[in-house]
Amino acid sequence: MDFVKETSERGVTERDFELKVDSELVPGVLWTPENADGTRPTVLIGHGGTQHKRVPNVVALARRLVRHLGYAAVALDAPGHGDRVTDPEAAERSRQALQSRIAGGTGGARGDRQFSPEEAKAWTERTRSGVREWRALVDELSSVPGLDEGPFGYWGVSMGTAIGLPFVSQEPRIAAAVLGLAGLNNRPGGDDFEKAARALTPPILFLFQWDDELMTRESGIALFDAIGSTEKTMHVNPGGHVQMPLFERDAVEAFFRRHLGVANQ
Amino acid sequence: MDFVKETSERGVTERDFELKVDSELVPGVLWTPENADGTRPTVLIGHGGTQHKRVPNVVALARRLVRHLGYAAVALDAPGHGDRVTDPEAAERSRQALQSRIAGGTGGARGDRQFSPEEAKAWTERTRSGVREWRALVDELSSVPGLDEGPFGYWGVSMGTAIGLPFVSQEPRIAAAVLGLAGLNNRPGGDDFEKAARALTPPILFLFQWDDELMTRESGIALFDAIGSTEKTMHVNPGGHVQMPLFERDAVEAFFRRHLGVANQ
Repeated sequence: MDFVKETSERGVTERDFELKVDSELVPGVLWTPENADGTRPTVLIGHGGTQHKRVPNVVALARRLVRHLGYAAVALDAPGHGDRVTDPEAAERSRQALQSRIAGGTGGARGDRQFSPEEAKAWTERTRSGVREWRALVDELSSVPGLDEGPFGYWGVSMGTAIGLPFVSQEPRIAAAVLGLAGLNNRPGGDDFEKAARALTPPILFLFQWDDELMTRESGIALFDAIGSTEKTMHVNPGGHVQMPLFERDAVEAFFRRHLGVANQ
Repeated sequence: MDFVKETSERGVTERDFELKVDSELVPGVLWTPENADGTRPTVLIGHGGTQHKRVPNVVALARRLVRHLGYAAVALDAPGHGDRVTDPEAAERSRQALQSRIAGGTGGARGDRQFSPEEAKAWTERTRSGVREWRALVDELSSVPGLDEGPFGYWGVSMGTAIGLPFVSQEPRIAAAVLGLAGLNNRPGGDDFEKAARALTPPILFLFQWDDELMTRESGIALFDAIGSTEKTMHVNPGGHVQMPLFERDAVEAFFRRHLGVANQ
């Protein structure tokens, strides 16, 4: 974990880093309280599809966790995302395709996306790499003074759940996770995904949008139902995939505070 | 609203009162901050079936709202409940019948309760009287110094929703409500209940138990779906009718704080 840049703003120190995983350098950001001493919980934040590690909702959540709870927060660019985009035109086409699926999504069509064999292969590989990178990050954090003892939490919806759910399911060091905007539908590797959901054990807050253009209500309920954790809560709000109410951020903060405690400054 | 008794404990003043509605005296409790001055929001708390105005979860919620937010809270004995029980043996039989429905409830049988014509008539009359009494209470509160300007909120699950949902639906002075543990099923007056749900406009927090022995998941989802309010959120947790996790009390507090604001002490 090589820190390459550091800035501080209103009590929050932000450090860019590169994490070596196999032969690749994965760019990330670590947020901590300015002049932090003592120990603190860390929340890993997984961004959504076509987004990147510094997208506004990721930064807003990170700063809130630092300022309100004294936590550390950390984000990575997912495989093929952010600074890891190798073909900007293809990335832009993906972004537009996602936007048009959201714009065109209506009841009947929801959750019916078909994947070409290439798309399915890319999705599966991205998930596998993403899981491996999060695990490497927790390994690294375990030697960062003040963060090394955890506890660790995870937050990620949509693609952040596609990658994060299997990660959390395999990673006993994650003590609590916020997932959502995902369902049990015709996703590539769907059987493995469902199996991972059933194997989950930490407390889960599952956020779902009632009118999500990308999936049916039934698929979201089926995923919540499959989650194996004894403590799990589903929050359902009206509105589409990108219309989650801001007050759910308060619920996320309360959830992490309950399970990860507060910083020992 | 005649106050008949007053005690204070750890910052909370509790006053018993009797509210005259038509020819009946309805017993209630008002909780306020000790030595309260200034103005404050008030939350009306409707207890569950076979319970009464001073059942532990009602008192706990009232004290929390007073201590954490500086609110007032008020509860009434529902028609035929608490101090208004006229036939203690029949009330005890009802309580035992409810307990055995909860104990014996399993997937297939959920929501299939059949009502005799007498039970259906009693349910409908209780709802009508309960709604009238809450409305009379808000009329009264509107002349209690410090509470007179509201805003007013409502909390009630199970029977607290059976009575409270139609009440809130008809009462524009209620600015936000917590409902739950109820569904669109074969309840007496079900059509009116659904109509009232569709007519709701204030923000609603709808609490539901995923393994509720008294109703199906589908009936709860159908009720959430029917709620007409633009802002509505459903919280789903595993467990039975009386197993709602205590952390939902934090969510209730955050919900009221968001919509009713804080006291002006």
